[in-house]
Amino acid sequence: MSDMTARFSEIVGEHNLLTGDAIPEDYWHDEVLTKPPQRPAYVAKPASAEEVSQLLKAASDNSVPVTARGSGTGLSGAAIPRADGLLISFERMNAVLEVDTTNQVAVVQPGVTLTELDAATADTGLRYMVHPGELSSSVGGNVGTNAGGMNAVKYGIARHNVLGLQAALPTGELMRTGGKLAKISTGYDLTQLIVGSEGTLALATEVTVKLHPRLDHTATVLAPFADFDQVMAAVPKILASGLGPYILEYVDNLTMAALVHTQNLELGVPDSIRDSCDAYLVVALESRTADRLDEGVEKAGELLAELGAVDAYVLEGGSARKLIEAREKAFWTLKAVGADDLIDTVVPRGAMPKFLSAARGLAAAAGGAAAGCGHAGDGNVHLAIFCKDPDTRKKLLTDIFALAMELGGAISGEHGLGRAKTPYFLELEDPVKVDLMRRIKQSFDPAGILNPDVVFAGETLNR
Amino acid sequence: MSDMTARFSEIVGEHNLLTGDAIPEDYWHDEVLTKPPQRPAYVAKPASAEEVSQLLKAASDNSVPVTARGSGTGLSGAAIPRADGLLISFERMNAVLEVDTTNQVAVVQPGVTLTELDAATADTGLRYMVHPGELSSSVGGNVGTNAGGMNAVKYGIARHNVLGLQAALPTGELMRTGGKLAKISTGYDLTQLIVGSEGTLALATEVTVKLHPRLDHTATVLAPFADFDQVMAAVPKILASGLGPYILEYVDNLTMAALVHTQNLELGVPDSIRDSCDAYLVVALESRTADRLDEGVEKAGELLAELGAVDAYVLEGGSARKLIEAREKAFWTLKAVGADDLIDTVVPRGAMPKFLSAARGLAAAAGGAAAGCGHAGDGNVHLAIFCKDPDTRKKLLTDIFALAMELGGAISGEHGLGRAKTPYFLELEDPVKVDLMRRIKQSFDPAGILNPDVVFAGETLNR
Repeated sequence: MSDMTARFSEIVGEHNLLTGDAIPEDYWHDEVLTKPPQRPAYVAKPASAEEVSQLLKAASDNSVPVTARGSGTGLSGAAIPRADGLLISFERMNAVLEVDTTNQVAVVQPGVTLTELDAATADTGLRYMVHPGELSSSVGGNVGTNAGGMNAVKYGIARHNVLGLQAALPTGELMRTGGKLAKISTGYDLTQLIVGSEGTLALATEVTVKLHPRLDHTATVLAPFADFDQVMAAVPKILASGLGPYILEYVDNLTMAALVHTQNLELGVPDSIRDSCDAYLVVALESRTADRLDEGVEKAGELLAELGAVDAYVLEGGSARKLIEAREKAFWTLKAVGADDLIDTVVPRGAMPKFLSAARGLAAAAGGAAAGCGHAGDGNVHLAIFCKDPDTRKKLLTDIFALAMELGGAISGEHGLGRAKTPYFLELEDPVKVDLMRRIKQSFDPAGILNPDVVFAGETLNR
Repeated sequence: MSDMTARFSEIVGEHNLLTGDAIPEDYWHDEVLTKPPQRPAYVAKPASAEEVSQLLKAASDNSVPVTARGSGTGLSGAAIPRADGLLISFERMNAVLEVDTTNQVAVVQPGVTLTELDAATADTGLRYMVHPGELSSSVGGNVGTNAGGMNAVKYGIARHNVLGLQAALPTGELMRTGGKLAKISTGYDLTQLIVGSEGTLALATEVTVKLHPRLDHTATVLAPFADFDQVMAAVPKILASGLGPYILEYVDNLTMAALVHTQNLELGVPDSIRDSCDAYLVVALESRTADRLDEGVEKAGELLAELGAVDAYVLEGGSARKLIEAREKAFWTLKAVGADDLIDTVVPRGAMPKFLSAARGLAAAAGGAAAGCGHAGDGNVHLAIFCKDPDTRKKLLTDIFALAMELGGAISGEHGLGRAKTPYFLELEDPVKVDLMRRIKQSFDPAGILNPDVVFAGETLNR
């Protein structure tokens, strides 16, 4: 047994440390499409913040790279470990510590999944409203990537719903930031610096999240449009209308065809309309009362007609749920039909028509294709990239990301850079900002042990 | 003319640099109660981001301390310059660069006041919803302090409404962070690190803020309560009810008496009720339609009665406006009646009864008094401290802040630490966090020129 094995084992207990061949393949990867799995040297499963802090201290002292893992549902490769590294899996730190209805917050350990948190809050009339497509994702993972999802158009992203942290610094100290507080202006906001830092600054060991009232009445409206640009032009109008949708998604016709086919959706859209339309809007409304919901649905129908929708279908409970689930699984569907990469670029929502049309043009010019769906209300586009040749694809992605940035956007809206997009970030981002971020990283992690292939180092593009 | 005078003058032009006796007293201070004014060595009035960056570079090269000034309406002394320092006044950088209705954002220079921004957006149906008490405050100042205000209960604080910045680093580089984007997960969130950093990390030279739809119909309900704890118990119930107030304030009876007297308010509350009540809730509602507003007001009345209000008065337009304005001016009223300090402590809202009762007990035990009002929905308390002896007052404030922190709160909810509260912060905050913040500061500002008396250095408490 090596010295490090002994040291880690002493901290978490022999049964909670895996090494070498005993490490199951699940720990080698997340769900990124473009990066190979990697077996780490060690997997530790701490049970407490103190154990996490001791693991980090030991790793810092011995320059062992550390990668954090929640549920492994990330899409950017931020949870792929180093071959010589320690993977800290938060699976045993999965307790909902408190559901506080007075302050409308929950305090949880980072390994809690969204499904578990939803169950723990079900009887309180409150709910954590960050819903990335995958409900088996963990709250700690949401913190790491600053997760978004379909409800962000109304409820914001992880950043807006994480109020406080206990976090372990890579040097081994534990600290508490923020809290059950609606506001705070007392020194720098360390909470929001850690949110979205993809395990490169500090590891959350406890998370305080905001809860929102559960609204009982919901309805989903599906609106096909003949012309893609009309869909995009409709989005700001819907947002300014006061309807307050909690979901506002677009799905292009190729993607909708794939979803309908693979998920056996019954949407009630006649073939003639389906064949002539370019894209769909999905508008979901919620309300405290059935009457107000009905008013909202009626108003949505009128507004969609004014905005050029060919028709508007109010989906019944079962069909609505199936459509939303299918949309959540779009990643898997697009992967199954052969997508070579999937990106989550964000642009100002007014720039979506220009971005999507130019991105499709770039893909076509490279001999590939780009199709997808996305969070229309947020300007957050999930484009599946079909382009087999890796070098051509790298060039294409570089061009697409550069285009987004020229339009005032950014490479990743909600999945994070991970290993997959770090090389593009380093190539395209303002070096003044990258250098500043690197200095911030050093102020947290002087030994550079935390996820060293993400945000900074990474492989180069080799073009 | 000194070398520095010549250098600064070359950058902004002779007419836009003041030195020595030519510097009017207005530039010596903000509105903090407890710190003396200080004449700086230089006041520069840049006209562009480039000029700001050149000023900072020159100051860094020569170790000249720099303090930024918006409108000088801050309450913590963060805009008091150093005697040997440069004050950068953003008064000439006061253009609204763009009101973008598609993306629902405005892009402004930091010197724009909230009144000016409101005028610039008036015709668009949209509005910037951060409203600290003082509408002559600047957007740049809002960024510096992470300003809150009465509308935060519905619309959040500056942090939630600032989407992007152009900022000048103290080393002279300009960078852009965030943008017209609803979400972003691409490296660290530099925007949110700079928001609330009180001019210690970088200076905003352009700010992109979120706009919200203006709702036409508003009503204000005033509810007296016999017992203070009932007021506090009512707050989470109102927030969970779905009424969605855009203002939810409490005012204690002493403060209400002072407001009524000094502002000549006509609230229609009979003397008998006024004399027997401990505190008031102010609940303001807004809606798109008169009908829905009426429904909301009726529901609010019923709910307030259930929650123990002695009565509920729906204030007409003029009286409502006067009450809200009086509440905004509570700081000046409390100052006029002899308050020795005013704090803006934040606690979890469920902890407000305990905090307020214990804080009043501490003040009484110190031979003083504490009274006030605050953003009940946010747990953000504005307590006027009446306690003449400076040493006793320092001890009292230390005890009150320590109490808030024990209850999971923080020293400042929205005014920032400034010079006034930095000593308490350094005494009470976890040294692990202060050290980390200091390292972050160094990663932005290696020469340590930006507002060196705020957040870190400051005077000690000398007790």
